Amino acid sequence: MSKVILINPFAVPAGKEEACLAFWEQAAEFMRRQPGYISTRLHEALSPQAKFHFINVAQWESAEHFQTAVDSERFKELTAPYMELFPHFPGLYKVVRT
Amino acid sequence: MSKVILINPFAVPAGKEEACLAFWEQAAEFMRRQPGYISTRLHEALSPQAKFHFINVAQWESAEHFQTAVDSERFKELTAPYMELFPHFPGLYKVVRT
Repeated sequence: MSKVILINPFAVPAGKEEACLAFWEQAAEFMRRQPGYISTRLHEALSPQAKFHFINVAQWESAEHFQTAVDSERFKELTAPYMELFPHFPGLYKVVRT
Repeated sequence: MSKVILINPFAVPAGKEEACLAFWEQAAEFMRRQPGYISTRLHEALSPQAKFHFINVAQWESAEHFQTAVDSERFKELTAPYMELFPHFPGLYKVVRT
């Protein structure tokens, strides 16, 4: 197992920024308590024209740890009401160039 | 002026990953020499199903420095042939939650 980086861009409808942030904080608070979670940085766009108003970049101990957290019933309950309101595109990454 | 984070997700057609990387390296090599550039990390998806195969996360001294580099004739020449091949969604960000 090796460390992975979760990157999750959120497409936020205009005027829904605060609702999206509240949703993200709920999910983040759960994720912080899961095995394998290391850290997170939520980025907010400087321009209202950005395609993705929020982009989360988090570190996990392994892909397996992250997947276990995502597959948990509690996480599904937390995120289900918001899945369609805030289209988002999570993926796991490694750094290949610096 | 304050530091900003550029995040640029690339949607890469299947089989075009190496061509996209070559394009990115050309652009990155130019960017590294511009005033205000600090650092960059190119992330590659672990899964071929990821919506964005590459996501670049870079630091710049200010939005003005980054915009000057993007607006330069040389950068436009370098990127023009690839703009449509690799749809990408650059935005400037600040960290709002950790």
